[in-house]
Amino acid sequence: MSAAATRPDEPDRLWSVDEHLQDVLSTVRPLEPIELQLLDAQGCVLVEDVMVPVSLPPFDNSSMDGYAVRVADVAGASEEFPAALTVVGDVAAGAGDPPRVGPGEAARIMTGAPLPPGAEAVVPVEWTDGGLGGGPVTRMTAHSAAPEGATGQVLVHRPAEARAHVRAKGSDTTAGERALEAGTVLGPSQIALLAAVGHGSVRVRPRPRVVVISTGSELVQPGGELRAGQIYDSNSFALTAAARDAGAIAYRVGAVTDDADVLRATIEDQLVRADLVVTTGGVSVGAYDVVKEALSDVGDGTSGQGTESAEGDGDGAEEPAGPGVDFRKLAMQPGKPQGFGTVGPDHVPLLALPGNPVSSYVSFELFVRPALRALMGLENVHRPTLRAVLAADKALTSPAGRRQFLRGRYAGGDVTPVGGASSHLVAALARANALIVIPEDVESVEPGTEVEVVLLG
Amino acid sequence: MSAAATRPDEPDRLWSVDEHLQDVLSTVRPLEPIELQLLDAQGCVLVEDVMVPVSLPPFDNSSMDGYAVRVADVAGASEEFPAALTVVGDVAAGAGDPPRVGPGEAARIMTGAPLPPGAEAVVPVEWTDGGLGGGPVTRMTAHSAAPEGATGQVLVHRPAEARAHVRAKGSDTTAGERALEAGTVLGPSQIALLAAVGHGSVRVRPRPRVVVISTGSELVQPGGELRAGQIYDSNSFALTAAARDAGAIAYRVGAVTDDADVLRATIEDQLVRADLVVTTGGVSVGAYDVVKEALSDVGDGTSGQGTESAEGDGDGAEEPAGPGVDFRKLAMQPGKPQGFGTVGPDHVPLLALPGNPVSSYVSFELFVRPALRALMGLENVHRPTLRAVLAADKALTSPAGRRQFLRGRYAGGDVTPVGGASSHLVAALARANALIVIPEDVESVEPGTEVEVVLLG
Repeated sequence: MSAAATRPDEPDRLWSVDEHLQDVLSTVRPLEPIELQLLDAQGCVLVEDVMVPVSLPPFDNSSMDGYAVRVADVAGASEEFPAALTVVGDVAAGAGDPPRVGPGEAARIMTGAPLPPGAEAVVPVEWTDGGLGGGPVTRMTAHSAAPEGATGQVLVHRPAEARAHVRAKGSDTTAGERALEAGTVLGPSQIALLAAVGHGSVRVRPRPRVVVISTGSELVQPGGELRAGQIYDSNSFALTAAARDAGAIAYRVGAVTDDADVLRATIEDQLVRADLVVTTGGVSVGAYDVVKEALSDVGDGTSGQGTESAEGDGDGAEEPAGPGVDFRKLAMQPGKPQGFGTVGPDHVPLLALPGNPVSSYVSFELFVRPALRALMGLENVHRPTLRAVLAADKALTSPAGRRQFLRGRYAGGDVTPVGGASSHLVAALARANALIVIPEDVESVEPGTEVEVVLLG
Repeated sequence: MSAAATRPDEPDRLWSVDEHLQDVLSTVRPLEPIELQLLDAQGCVLVEDVMVPVSLPPFDNSSMDGYAVRVADVAGASEEFPAALTVVGDVAAGAGDPPRVGPGEAARIMTGAPLPPGAEAVVPVEWTDGGLGGGPVTRMTAHSAAPEGATGQVLVHRPAEARAHVRAKGSDTTAGERALEAGTVLGPSQIALLAAVGHGSVRVRPRPRVVVISTGSELVQPGGELRAGQIYDSNSFALTAAARDAGAIAYRVGAVTDDADVLRATIEDQLVRADLVVTTGGVSVGAYDVVKEALSDVGDGTSGQGTESAEGDGDGAEEPAGPGVDFRKLAMQPGKPQGFGTVGPDHVPLLALPGNPVSSYVSFELFVRPALRALMGLENVHRPTLRAVLAADKALTSPAGRRQFLRGRYAGGDVTPVGGASSHLVAALARANALIVIPEDVESVEPGTEVEVVLLG
């Protein structure tokens, strides 16, 4: 069990938000790295420096469509007195064996094509007659339309300095340099660099796989029919979406009925594809709080319930091993009851969140999201926070000794609470883009005061 | 063809960045909406207001684990003189037929369970003896461990006002209200609300499918072996990743050789899964610029090339229909040569970007990303921009008449150029998080000056 776990002699002590988060983050370890194809590694974190194996570009090449020439041959060339050069052939991009350019000669060359031996510079096609014997042209004739364009004579109307319009080998990056350092998150431009220097795959920490399970016999799948006493399951949808937003691969298992054996069997079943398990509901002080009952390792007389039927199963269904899950009360609102621990032989972290939709969402933001980002190996696991001026009609109140997280709308330095602390909760959550944080030692915040704000997404 | 298309009498006029963008955005139409399951709709835009079909919560229910009571029965209750009530049963969450609570009676009730008939308030379990006959308790005994907890007598130590700890039907949102309005982007909390009010699916514009094709006979797949004159294909990887970042479903087709027939056949083949096609390379003035050759509708003597062999195919391979693709020069650096138009019988938009990796990446940001977001139906298709102070050793220079986009690193109000305009390009791009915009009429920017910055990601 984690160092900060609830001591048996004070099962009801209040944990601070920071203590609980610290317990989670000190338990969760970054996932083992694997080699992934570049596009599968998008959003992942490099675990080692990546070096440049070959210089970029790997050879001197043309930065323009034009003619590869020798400097002396075009010295003093003008529109009135053009230099006339013999075209010895085409150098297309990808050409492996370009023709040698001798004195009085030129090769038609394309952007990215290797500078042919003998050539010292490139003159753009716009500085020439394009081999047509007239004045300056604006483009080349397509090779497929006029293959003879790579022969005959070209008139060059301007001189060129040595290396003009030549991209030198290694001018972008050179072999042996460090392309990217360990810890880099791979976005499109990092993937561009890795591909450009020839890395088809890369060693990263994979995206974590999260199994999301909601619990409650009252839960009906959205779209189904509500009977008396029932409500729709929203937590499993919200948290699956939120886990994806955080970078995880999320599996929504959906609602499990309030039966400890069923819940235990479901979790055991899902562990094969879980780097982290999130449950909602069943963590409070009620008589049907099955998450607590099924997973608690605290000797309160309820753990071990269901062992008989699991054994009676006869097919080797085992109790989740590992240090177990600790259930505790946090000094926060919403989100007071929480569970955290590890389950199964691989000690997969499990966060048991409360069942109220707003509580579970806030708990996800505060504890699960940082855990997922820690699994990914990210250094900064937290949402950005800032100070904002409270825009409200009246003072906000908050219970003493609890850190309160109100839903708010942040815009241009101001934050406006949406919904109250206890009404229009889910509807308000959908309009919020921030959490307003009221510290434990503050019971009232006047409009116009600066408050801490966590920006969501 | 779009209204702003190149006029035949001025094929070489320079287009401004804004003219080209305007041409793209006036052509691209939001995708037709479809009904998607909630989690498939994440990140998508609602096309119609979504109403609340049933009130939330759908019934009066308990906000605590405790006992449902009648107010008169607990009036004046204290720890010294508790009210003794007969427990008539359990009301678990999801209970369809809770027991009636008569005078002198109480029902054990769980958070979220319906308030039973006759009951007027809920007292938390912590205000009672939990039915154990002693002092106040901190939790209920688990039902499975002690089913007899739902019978016998409970002592209540505190009075409760009417409706105490009761969440009223419709207090979150009521039937007939508008849950979300058309145009809303569905993130986790919007999905939470839709699920909570019972919508299992929702009508949205789907994520656009983008086919990414790079062209060039010099291109080798990363991880393969480079031969003389060859480089690694990075564009198809970078743009596929960037398209995903923008919210699209992206298919990387990879590198196609410089052959107009092969390119045309590839595009025709891919159209079945494309809401938008992006190509890189082959758009300039060279003799092997096959994208231009294959797709141009301008009568420059090169369009139609390859028709003979296509006809010789004999299997009905058709020219892409539609208004065709217009190739043009833009007054920008990098990214001067660009193509835009529509292809195929369904007039699928196609953006032909230049082949230089930095040019194609910048072009994607400026033109493809807004096009993808327009397809999604988003109102704001642009990256955020801001003003930043230029932190540099010397003045930045920019060609007159061109809008220049330099790669930079933005932090805390300052932006520092990374790499130069023409060296360490891909390596620098991988370190950039912003584009520095130098307007057309500015040729030099001194350090310490404010510049416009586009924030990338």
